[in-house]
Amino acid sequence: MPNACVSCPVFSCVSYSSISLSQATSSNRRGSACNNLAFSGWKCRRQIFARAVGAIEKESAMAEKPGTFLRDSEGEPSGTNSVRARFEKMIRKAQDDVCVAVEAVDGHGFREDVWSRPGGGGGISRVLQDGNVWEKAGVNVSVVYGNMPPEAYRAAKPVNSPDNGSRLGSIPFFAAGISSVMHPKNPFAPTVHFNYRYFETDAPKDVEGAPRQWWFGGGTDLTPSYVFEEDVKHFHMVQKQACDKFDPSFYPRFKNWCDDYFFIKHRGERRGLGGIFFDDLNENDQEMLLAFSTECTNSVIPAYIPIVEKRKDMPFTERHKSWQQLRRGRYVEFNLVYDRGTTFGLKTGGRIESILMSLPLTARWEYDHQPVEGSEEWKLLDACINPKEWLQP
Amino acid sequence: MPNACVSCPVFSCVSYSSISLSQATSSNRRGSACNNLAFSGWKCRRQIFARAVGAIEKESAMAEKPGTFLRDSEGEPSGTNSVRARFEKMIRKAQDDVCVAVEAVDGHGFREDVWSRPGGGGGISRVLQDGNVWEKAGVNVSVVYGNMPPEAYRAAKPVNSPDNGSRLGSIPFFAAGISSVMHPKNPFAPTVHFNYRYFETDAPKDVEGAPRQWWFGGGTDLTPSYVFEEDVKHFHMVQKQACDKFDPSFYPRFKNWCDDYFFIKHRGERRGLGGIFFDDLNENDQEMLLAFSTECTNSVIPAYIPIVEKRKDMPFTERHKSWQQLRRGRYVEFNLVYDRGTTFGLKTGGRIESILMSLPLTARWEYDHQPVEGSEEWKLLDACINPKEWLQP
Repeated sequence: MPNACVSCPVFSCVSYSSISLSQATSSNRRGSACNNLAFSGWKCRRQIFARAVGAIEKESAMAEKPGTFLRDSEGEPSGTNSVRARFEKMIRKAQDDVCVAVEAVDGHGFREDVWSRPGGGGGISRVLQDGNVWEKAGVNVSVVYGNMPPEAYRAAKPVNSPDNGSRLGSIPFFAAGISSVMHPKNPFAPTVHFNYRYFETDAPKDVEGAPRQWWFGGGTDLTPSYVFEEDVKHFHMVQKQACDKFDPSFYPRFKNWCDDYFFIKHRGERRGLGGIFFDDLNENDQEMLLAFSTECTNSVIPAYIPIVEKRKDMPFTERHKSWQQLRRGRYVEFNLVYDRGTTFGLKTGGRIESILMSLPLTARWEYDHQPVEGSEEWKLLDACINPKEWLQP
Repeated sequence: MPNACVSCPVFSCVSYSSISLSQATSSNRRGSACNNLAFSGWKCRRQIFARAVGAIEKESAMAEKPGTFLRDSEGEPSGTNSVRARFEKMIRKAQDDVCVAVEAVDGHGFREDVWSRPGGGGGISRVLQDGNVWEKAGVNVSVVYGNMPPEAYRAAKPVNSPDNGSRLGSIPFFAAGISSVMHPKNPFAPTVHFNYRYFETDAPKDVEGAPRQWWFGGGTDLTPSYVFEEDVKHFHMVQKQACDKFDPSFYPRFKNWCDDYFFIKHRGERRGLGGIFFDDLNENDQEMLLAFSTECTNSVIPAYIPIVEKRKDMPFTERHKSWQQLRRGRYVEFNLVYDRGTTFGLKTGGRIESILMSLPLTARWEYDHQPVEGSEEWKLLDACINPKEWLQP
């Protein structure tokens, strides 16, 4: 079954938390106003969500980490065996594991902020800034409870499921995710980004036959300033191995999706050398996709850390540093202009510091910079313009 | 008469040039789909324009500056006395004057790029990068010819003018503007931005009684990292004096408009300490508004250069530099996320290097940076959060 919608904004950023969108009006039916405006499904949903800006609860700091951010009131299916409970457990363990691995290489520790929202949900933001190896590294987990207007539910659900449209009220949803960006200091050590998320809507209690919907989304991608082919191959190979354990079509499909997604349209180039990306994935068995997301999340350390260890102490010049800073500028352009999670999070009043944690510590914009053809800088740019099949024989 | 639309995207950035938008469909009538989606007039127009991305001609470099970028074919009113001709002359002289004034202070010269588009129009981009005083200073002029879909024309024209709607084909338009951002190195010397623009639609030849429309837009605003009250007062006083020569209501009105426009919504703060801003101005006499725009443009040098001369050699520490870099990060956030000219220009395939010339050479993002209450950094932030009446007795 094809995806009903190519990507779900609620998945792309899980830092904005606990959205109550029931104020949105019901004038946006998919196929009428949205299609008239040439919005695809996800754009439509993003519009619908983003219109309810005023309704978001402000987060507040917590002194201690709770055992879970899941509600256990309201008779929700938040038992320890539910997918949402197991997903939260998985991402919280992954946050610990990644931070331990990074601290072991860097020598500096992460700062931690814990926060929650009155209506349920919350998150843990961890940041390591100005370390020995990383300029800025952030690892967030968060859990979001919200209410989705019925239009967004209709736009989000698979095409062939029953509508029951006119009878739906606002639909409660749940989203949880881990999200991380790490920018090293050494210009030969690449930036990595990964993000894995799970989304569920509750079955509306008063509408018989209206199904609960769920989706997985995520990806891991590498953004070097210089191309070391062995590094990029290693990175992609780890992604492929994780994918191949579940479906041989996953790696080629999600590799291309990644190249398509991280495209800086106004530059005609990708922000980096890709990896894997998928969104709104619900056509496979739920248990299989939970296991797949877990495998991908656990692959971040073996995919990335050995590369940084190899490159972190390489000598470099001002020219290398300056080029890295220009590429960091491109990273900022992508995240602020195109990244769905970031742009959606900014519009809907999420926790700004968690959303913008992905931005590098420093970045640079030179007017009309053009690398000399054939130079090392040019090679990176060329690979960002013309994505390569890194694992071809 | 109130403005028909608060702001026109075609005015906000004149670097994208020579747009042919006739491919856009006619499903977006103001008051139907647009209002359903809670779009205001300008958002509606931006949508309509932005949908025709593929139709923009690629610019090409020119070896020499032409005497004018105006077409003189097709019987257009581009005689030397037309408003469009006088406006182009004014902004080209202003570009020369500002560059001479900046070079005199900096010691470095501007690089110049001249470009044109096959269908008419073009521009001159001048950039001074890594100078003695300025990190990056850009001054652009450009002239744009395009075709506006009838929906955009309807959305743009004053409310009480005749519609003749259903009979309109695509409307030829003309836009010309000067746009500049200058980022000094010294953290005590402020950034300035100014932009003045003129927009005209041709009266459709085959529709009797359909009026030619025209608007002026622009503004000059100051973005310091530290507040020197005498500097900010001087800057605002020069703006007020320029405004008061034409209408005593202009300064208070355009000062507030500026505070409203340069708002970084997700931060709850303005990018700087304001100045003046106006858009879609057509309720006054055209000659008066041409003279007013000229006065404002010519006020940039006396408003800004004396401040830089006073601050450019002040001793500073790493702390001051780091705070300046954080404020530069906010500048990037505003321009990439909110600025209509930038976001519209990026979407419609304008000349990227001219559009992004406004970005600082370097910028910085620290996680959760909070200035100490009462500190000099805090005072600036406070003034960005709570705009002040700098000229009150």
